[in-house]
Amino acid sequence: MSDLIKKASLAKATTTSLATSTTKEKNEALELLSKALRDKKEFIIAENQKDIERGRANGLHESLIDRLVLNEKRIKDMADALLQLVELEDPIGNVLESWKRPNDLEIEKVRVPIGVVGMIYEARPNVTIDAASLCLKTGNAVLLRGSSSAIHSNTALVKVIHDALRQSSLPSDAVQLLEDTSRETASKMFKLNEYLDVLIPRGGKKLIDTVVANSSVPVLETGAGNCHLFIDETASKKMAIEIAINAKTQRPSVCNAIETILVQKQWASQYLKDLLFALQEAGVEIHGDEVIAENNDTVTLATEEDYETEYLDKIVAMKVVDTVEDAIDHINRYGTNHSEAIISENNENVVAFMNEVDAAAVYHNASTRFTDGFEFGFGAEIGISTQKLHARGPMGLEALTSTKYLLHGNGQIK
Amino acid sequence: MSDLIKKASLAKATTTSLATSTTKEKNEALELLSKALRDKKEFIIAENQKDIERGRANGLHESLIDRLVLNEKRIKDMADALLQLVELEDPIGNVLESWKRPNDLEIEKVRVPIGVVGMIYEARPNVTIDAASLCLKTGNAVLLRGSSSAIHSNTALVKVIHDALRQSSLPSDAVQLLEDTSRETASKMFKLNEYLDVLIPRGGKKLIDTVVANSSVPVLETGAGNCHLFIDETASKKMAIEIAINAKTQRPSVCNAIETILVQKQWASQYLKDLLFALQEAGVEIHGDEVIAENNDTVTLATEEDYETEYLDKIVAMKVVDTVEDAIDHINRYGTNHSEAIISENNENVVAFMNEVDAAAVYHNASTRFTDGFEFGFGAEIGISTQKLHARGPMGLEALTSTKYLLHGNGQIK
Repeated sequence: MSDLIKKASLAKATTTSLATSTTKEKNEALELLSKALRDKKEFIIAENQKDIERGRANGLHESLIDRLVLNEKRIKDMADALLQLVELEDPIGNVLESWKRPNDLEIEKVRVPIGVVGMIYEARPNVTIDAASLCLKTGNAVLLRGSSSAIHSNTALVKVIHDALRQSSLPSDAVQLLEDTSRETASKMFKLNEYLDVLIPRGGKKLIDTVVANSSVPVLETGAGNCHLFIDETASKKMAIEIAINAKTQRPSVCNAIETILVQKQWASQYLKDLLFALQEAGVEIHGDEVIAENNDTVTLATEEDYETEYLDKIVAMKVVDTVEDAIDHINRYGTNHSEAIISENNENVVAFMNEVDAAAVYHNASTRFTDGFEFGFGAEIGISTQKLHARGPMGLEALTSTKYLLHGNGQIK
Repeated sequence: MSDLIKKASLAKATTTSLATSTTKEKNEALELLSKALRDKKEFIIAENQKDIERGRANGLHESLIDRLVLNEKRIKDMADALLQLVELEDPIGNVLESWKRPNDLEIEKVRVPIGVVGMIYEARPNVTIDAASLCLKTGNAVLLRGSSSAIHSNTALVKVIHDALRQSSLPSDAVQLLEDTSRETASKMFKLNEYLDVLIPRGGKKLIDTVVANSSVPVLETGAGNCHLFIDETASKKMAIEIAINAKTQRPSVCNAIETILVQKQWASQYLKDLLFALQEAGVEIHGDEVIAENNDTVTLATEEDYETEYLDKIVAMKVVDTVEDAIDHINRYGTNHSEAIISENNENVVAFMNEVDAAAVYHNASTRFTDGFEFGFGAEIGISTQKLHARGPMGLEALTSTKYLLHGNGQIK
């Protein structure tokens, strides 16, 4: 039996026990893990050091080395996050609906764990703790496949998880880490429908696209964000500029930052120069259409490719449009169904925009930067779904659950 | 451009219009379609006749010919079903949750259409009307891929749909039928993530398995039902026998019929002979373990394969077990997570069974035959999901919807 099948079976064998664990038992396990992380920080840091040394020897870029590092601060953050997770309401067991049929059959729809979650992720080793703890809180087993560059760190963290779980009432086999990080094994994981109920890729676009294209196991897709801001003819100049700067520059590398600004032509004729000035003051490079370029000689002329690009950098595409419908058409053509915003004081435009733009989160008079599990108040985030099945937008604990119908009868036959 | 891409594009181009259609507009279209089916029944029957003649010429089995037939009665049933669908509540636009964040940002979660549904189905041409109408009611466009053996019938039905939609406020391009029914084109449809938001296979296990194994488009899987009945030591003899007979024989060919009966040993020592007698009176062939076989010399000895088999016929596997936990273990090992039942008067056993059995629907003292969208009171059924993401168990109109967050601000920045 391969390591993959062995670990997938061990994880699956724990699902009944996990599904019937109480909230108290799950929270105790998370508290034990939080304490274990603090107690074993020297061990974790020493193992992490091996990954860092190998990374440096292999010429890994310092920005990637930085993502690998586990230091006292980062371990404390992980331990603190576990205690915050303890405080969150446990969704498992909640009765979502209940009703009685004319034949007296009583039907309850209750929230249950998904079963076994497969998690495929890139370098950051903190995802190991994050994924394992979110799965445990929701009564799921998890099969982790991290990056080969973080294998010592991940192995150390899973050892700490297992030691903590052995002191708890939860089965320690609930968390499994694949030691074999080859692509061949990952490809087999994509097809492991017999053991895995869902696959969650966490990482760059290439990883996610590979998982989506090749998995027969259902995937929770967390996709790219080519997000837009549309400023209509009635938009407040101050609000539009503040939100444009915030949504573009507050953290350009994240998926909910904007990549294109669409400006209605009347607004542009009055305030475009001010907006361009503010963006450039903030260090943003502008790729604009001809109207924009006419207003400012440092603007690069935008191409079709600009409108398709998620820059994830201090660059923005800009275009002047005639109407809200033109803005909606542009967004539905080039957007990635993530987060889109309109700045407007005209109710008709706002209603059209919010109803017709096809995205997980559509904003009126606010920055797109709020598309985030914590900003939404979920207290946790699995990722931001850009697909339409199961979960859409920021995913909290509920995204890691399924439902089950319980039917109570007194001898009903059909 | 291929016919596939052309039709997928046409369908996708209607999604904004469909998503903003009112309930009144959608219901009017369904009423027009109901009337059109009645008005054009001669045309439909004449086109259907071509499929039947070709089927007979190709030596198609009469049971498959029967599935193909559209006669006056079946056309009337389809037209009536459309009027029933009009009566159902439209889920689109429902506000599922709304809350305000500390920064005054208001968040609403609203129900929206999925977008474009891809439907792959086998011979029955009535699925064409069923799938199209359920999609229209929920504001979805649909790309239909039926069987080559029903191509004349499906083409005729889609012509009737288009004629009806042209008189309505809905875009007639919302319903598209692929004329090319080759496997090669179906395989391309599996990978059409750019146009399709979901694929729904309707048909036999082989079709569903092929779609699940090969699709990168998310699949709503409606799977097989290897369902069980467990009779514990406290079960009423009369109720247990009535439910066993009903769940096995009322319609053996459907997925929610039982395939294995597990009998607790004390109950078996008292009543097994009566149960075996009742099953054999009802014409059921029994494949039992050694204890069962000892009780009745017409019982075939069950093999491992029997416990894995969805007979879909008047055959049942039977096994005597010691405890409720043994029953749960057997079910979680051999079941397909569809519908499972316990007959018991012992609350502890019932709670253990309902919590620990991993299935879409778990019954206490009732027949598994109620796992059905109509029996659940949904008024419609897309299928019965045996996967855990998006929808589980009988799927009504809500399974054809997604959600969207609408955020109302007054200038919030992060």
